[in-house]
Amino acid sequence: MLIPAISPTVDTALSDQLDAAVNNKTKPLGSLGVLESLAKQLGLIQNTRDITVRKPAILVFAADHGVVAEGISAYPQDVTWQMVENFLAGGAAINVFAEQNNCALQVIDAGVNHAFGPRAGLVDRKLANGTHNFAQEPAMSRATCQAALAAGMALAAELEGNVVGFGEMGIGNTTAAAALMHKLTGIPVAQCVGAGTGLSPEGVLHKQRVIEAAVARHGSITEPLDVLATFGGLEIAMIAGAMLKAAELRKVLLIDGFIVTSALLVAARLQPAILDYCVFAHCSDEQGHEQMLAALDARPLLSLGLRLGEGTGCALALPLLHAAVNFLNRMATFESAQVSAKAH
Amino acid sequence: MLIPAISPTVDTALSDQLDAAVNNKTKPLGSLGVLESLAKQLGLIQNTRDITVRKPAILVFAADHGVVAEGISAYPQDVTWQMVENFLAGGAAINVFAEQNNCALQVIDAGVNHAFGPRAGLVDRKLANGTHNFAQEPAMSRATCQAALAAGMALAAELEGNVVGFGEMGIGNTTAAAALMHKLTGIPVAQCVGAGTGLSPEGVLHKQRVIEAAVARHGSITEPLDVLATFGGLEIAMIAGAMLKAAELRKVLLIDGFIVTSALLVAARLQPAILDYCVFAHCSDEQGHEQMLAALDARPLLSLGLRLGEGTGCALALPLLHAAVNFLNRMATFESAQVSAKAH
Repeated sequence: MLIPAISPTVDTALSDQLDAAVNNKTKPLGSLGVLESLAKQLGLIQNTRDITVRKPAILVFAADHGVVAEGISAYPQDVTWQMVENFLAGGAAINVFAEQNNCALQVIDAGVNHAFGPRAGLVDRKLANGTHNFAQEPAMSRATCQAALAAGMALAAELEGNVVGFGEMGIGNTTAAAALMHKLTGIPVAQCVGAGTGLSPEGVLHKQRVIEAAVARHGSITEPLDVLATFGGLEIAMIAGAMLKAAELRKVLLIDGFIVTSALLVAARLQPAILDYCVFAHCSDEQGHEQMLAALDARPLLSLGLRLGEGTGCALALPLLHAAVNFLNRMATFESAQVSAKAH
Repeated sequence: MLIPAISPTVDTALSDQLDAAVNNKTKPLGSLGVLESLAKQLGLIQNTRDITVRKPAILVFAADHGVVAEGISAYPQDVTWQMVENFLAGGAAINVFAEQNNCALQVIDAGVNHAFGPRAGLVDRKLANGTHNFAQEPAMSRATCQAALAAGMALAAELEGNVVGFGEMGIGNTTAAAALMHKLTGIPVAQCVGAGTGLSPEGVLHKQRVIEAAVARHGSITEPLDVLATFGGLEIAMIAGAMLKAAELRKVLLIDGFIVTSALLVAARLQPAILDYCVFAHCSDEQGHEQMLAALDARPLLSLGLRLGEGTGCALALPLLHAAVNFLNRMATFESAQVSAKAH
């Protein structure tokens, strides 16, 4: 299949212009910390000194996971479709935080094990009623995986805005994400698994054993798309596809928590330059996310102890993107404000 | 002088109600991290289950410091009044971030060494043209210090809203704040001093020596108000007064960076219960702030490498207060959304 071509954002002349613009603002050098590097990154992505956040959107992909048959989640599988209904009714955390931040929200059925029927506001891209149980067989066929990537790319191609965040819902998907993390980073499974929606320590250990056994069963798989098909989820594959296309279109990618970052692990193996387009919204409390971020050399904006998913971290980080844009566009310079420069 | 009476916020019945309200929302238990404790804190401060952020305001207090005669700042003293003009013209970082977050801004001349004349938008509470040089004599008299505290209290008493952030501008004020930190926490001066607006390592060492000599000179001073008068600034004293009154009025106090937190050190020594009302906006990049926060057992919301002051951290943290309020008020419950509860 055709993977989008992604160019690195490096541009020395523009980079120097952005540095000068940041440093001329009425503030001590470097005193706006990560907002300064964020403003510069947006300039390099958007290829301009006049950066914007225009019509930001969060895409929440939902799907079910066959591996729940192994008893790896604290909640029953029905919670996936029930939470999709909650998204559509506006009652979930992501609804509240997206609305607060004037962020559009799309809810996509990538493969939920439930017949929703026609639903206003639900984007139907269902490829199956969830994945197969990867403890016994590959989660999906290579063809299904490619169809999911393509569906994600098509959704990203339709976006109007220049900032896109990614969210997910899927009971069992921290198990899939932990398996992807292990396979793509080599970090031991024990350090990739976490409590997900709230497993006991015994539950986490069981989850670890399930993943370790599955990894042993599918031992020969190493190529990123095969890893994705074998251990991933339909929502994870669709997210990876949407990320790749959005980066090709030079949009800013807002990366949420553990599951969304696992999709990026796949995308970055296919196109490493995608990382230039990524803003890491937060470090999740899910064990494994910190090391996953480190594996990507990523520095998250927020660290609030969140472990909810849905794209909530993206929505909460959006004001910081606005702040980066606003300080660069609106602050006075030392010259314009007639403020004295550094004395010594 | 009369220090405001501040009651601790503890209320067991309300505390239980707030916990139940948070835990019934459609999300895994605890998965909104610090937003959950923040929502609860707001409930206890406002003494209600129906929390709000109403007409938030940031008060930016500006003043000059006699200790600049010792060469402890990278910028000339004129920058204080020049930045006040920048605030009034709307060109500073705090203007941009306050406007972005629909936050009112008050700029107060607590003691700037400059005759502004009548200026729309400038609140004139000037008590002197800056402090004395504390390397040689007390920064201010006990009477001036009390007048500054009283002026701050009066300003806080006039606030309409229920959330107030504190900011400051004053060339030399990290030196005053570092001295206060050392005197009030006992942490060695070397760990209290930082680069401020951008000192070289040699400059930081000189600043340390200036503070150490001043501390030796004023060795017998230990009582918090005497420490404040001896080493503090007019803006720092006015902030401490405003904090005390705002807490008495059960407002939420948003604490900014190194200098604002040093004012809180004083206030907390006078009325320890004030800490119940404090939301710590961020951990500054100014060396010393992390330990200063630790001395108050404070957990900041943001850590963005900021070291600008002006109340910028408060403005940037405001969306997280809104998020805490909004999730508690607007999210569906498991019952209302008919989402299944935890299975095991």
